[in-house]
Amino acid sequence: MDQPVVIGMDIGGTKTLIGLVNSQGEPIAKYQFPTDILSSPEEHLLKCINAAKNLLLEANIKTILGIGVNAPGLVDSKKGLLIHAPYLGWRNINVREIIQQFWPNKRVQIANDVNACAVGELLFGKGKNFNDFLWVTISTGIGGGLILNNQLVEGNSLLAGEIGHFVVEWENGYQCSCGNRGCLEAYSSGKAIADQTKRQIEQDKHGGLAAYFNRRKLSISAENTAAAAYEGIKPALAIYHLAGNHLGRAFSYAINLLNPAAIFIGGGVSQSLDLLKPSIHKVLENSVISETNKSIPIITTGLGLEAGLIGAASLIYLDEFSY
Amino acid sequence: MDQPVVIGMDIGGTKTLIGLVNSQGEPIAKYQFPTDILSSPEEHLLKCINAAKNLLLEANIKTILGIGVNAPGLVDSKKGLLIHAPYLGWRNINVREIIQQFWPNKRVQIANDVNACAVGELLFGKGKNFNDFLWVTISTGIGGGLILNNQLVEGNSLLAGEIGHFVVEWENGYQCSCGNRGCLEAYSSGKAIADQTKRQIEQDKHGGLAAYFNRRKLSISAENTAAAAYEGIKPALAIYHLAGNHLGRAFSYAINLLNPAAIFIGGGVSQSLDLLKPSIHKVLENSVISETNKSIPIITTGLGLEAGLIGAASLIYLDEFSY
Repeated sequence: MDQPVVIGMDIGGTKTLIGLVNSQGEPIAKYQFPTDILSSPEEHLLKCINAAKNLLLEANIKTILGIGVNAPGLVDSKKGLLIHAPYLGWRNINVREIIQQFWPNKRVQIANDVNACAVGELLFGKGKNFNDFLWVTISTGIGGGLILNNQLVEGNSLLAGEIGHFVVEWENGYQCSCGNRGCLEAYSSGKAIADQTKRQIEQDKHGGLAAYFNRRKLSISAENTAAAAYEGIKPALAIYHLAGNHLGRAFSYAINLLNPAAIFIGGGVSQSLDLLKPSIHKVLENSVISETNKSIPIITTGLGLEAGLIGAASLIYLDEFSY
Repeated sequence: MDQPVVIGMDIGGTKTLIGLVNSQGEPIAKYQFPTDILSSPEEHLLKCINAAKNLLLEANIKTILGIGVNAPGLVDSKKGLLIHAPYLGWRNINVREIIQQFWPNKRVQIANDVNACAVGELLFGKGKNFNDFLWVTISTGIGGGLILNNQLVEGNSLLAGEIGHFVVEWENGYQCSCGNRGCLEAYSSGKAIADQTKRQIEQDKHGGLAAYFNRRKLSISAENTAAAAYEGIKPALAIYHLAGNHLGRAFSYAINLLNPAAIFIGGGVSQSLDLLKPSIHKVLENSVISETNKSIPIITTGLGLEAGLIGAASLIYLDEFSY
């Protein structure tokens, strides 16, 4: 059986996942290896290409529809160019050209990782029934991808979706890695939740949260704070409440401006979305216009842990499917 | 000479302007009369239709391309329906059906007034060279229209563009007419600038601003406060500075989310844009990501005082022109 597949290449900051994804959005074979930032981008792409070839051989698949690539950075999808991936230190890599040397007649699409996830959600996740939505990853950082009228919005200079850098505290805001102060990312990302936990434990060394972490010898992380919150530890609940409050502020702007049908949440912190949702909706109640907008569905991604890989492959399927 | 024209109907809260607009976006004939909110919407539309017929007769024009209508409210442009115009008290008026009784074979397009202006800017204003922009009217209230990829974005339930209701003050914000607190409209609209002027004069009855208004026996309005600011009266400058500061906050979200190529400003307060721009850009400097976004052009509309009429007609020309 030779079902046509798409090669997906999910190049992350620490690991790279290569997979063969069928037209139902299911990875039928995959291979993972570390992203080696010491090797050149060209060398790393060659490793990706070889991994894909091996997967095709092992699965005895001869027909591919194309190659979809996502990368954590600024991408010119029209030109197939990775302009800048800050974590990797890569600049101006012509990904399409490099890959097409090995598959000359196949389409190669590249996108920013969050944008790829948004497209993946549209085709294969819970976004099938929505034409307009915002896709937000809440992970170490916070990023956004925007689908309007079933199309990805990339922006005039490819910078759309920067919801992580919405200023949510205008006075004395926390410093953000982008250089500005008060950004959403400094309040509601996984790193911000961990930082807030650390502050709380330092401030109240004998309090309930400190006791929770010390008793279990837990390292400080958003995930462990969520576990404490699920146990009913009040300072942990308050930390998630604060993070949700600031997410609500940021979402209110996107909702008032675009009136999307839904907001999808991916990334590690999406596992704790139920801790965030009450405070998000409480803020929306007093900051968006119309009842429809107040009750907008805020939904955990339907793509699961392989969102990036499925997203990469979906860049090729987007053109195959008719919208 | 029988050049084809579009009938534009600009139905405002207080006045209605009917015009014949040629394919260069120029009104070649027009007729204005009060919007009579005591008569029924159907009666008012009949007046509009009669006015248009008279203009056609007088100009000896037999060919029209279509009829474009804008109205201050929620519009379903696909169905040609005015869902709700709060100022007029109109609900569920099938504008297309009513007008097509008189011109059965002609296209009838209807849009929200601000959205129509955004389309007008795209076709006939300074937006010709931009594919993606935000169009903001700063008048009694504040409204927005969004063009992405040369198309109007209306939102999932036709509520897109509500930048006037972005919360720009989360703590103890001024009450907004929408029911929420801290909205941009409560800080930077023409009404808000007038309210702020009133407060300032009451607080400092013998100050420079009070003296300026009293000496000239001026009524309190955003326009008169702008005149005082141009004369160098410091409290007037401070009022515009504050309004610009909050506009900058609101714009930062739209810019980070959509990365548009420009922001256009219409409405009465756009005449004083130079008083607002320094504080807008000062806020953007510390609240948007990338240099491109910090220096986004913020431009007074190129449509002039007849933006609404030209916008209404442009709804028909949008389909005539190829993008």
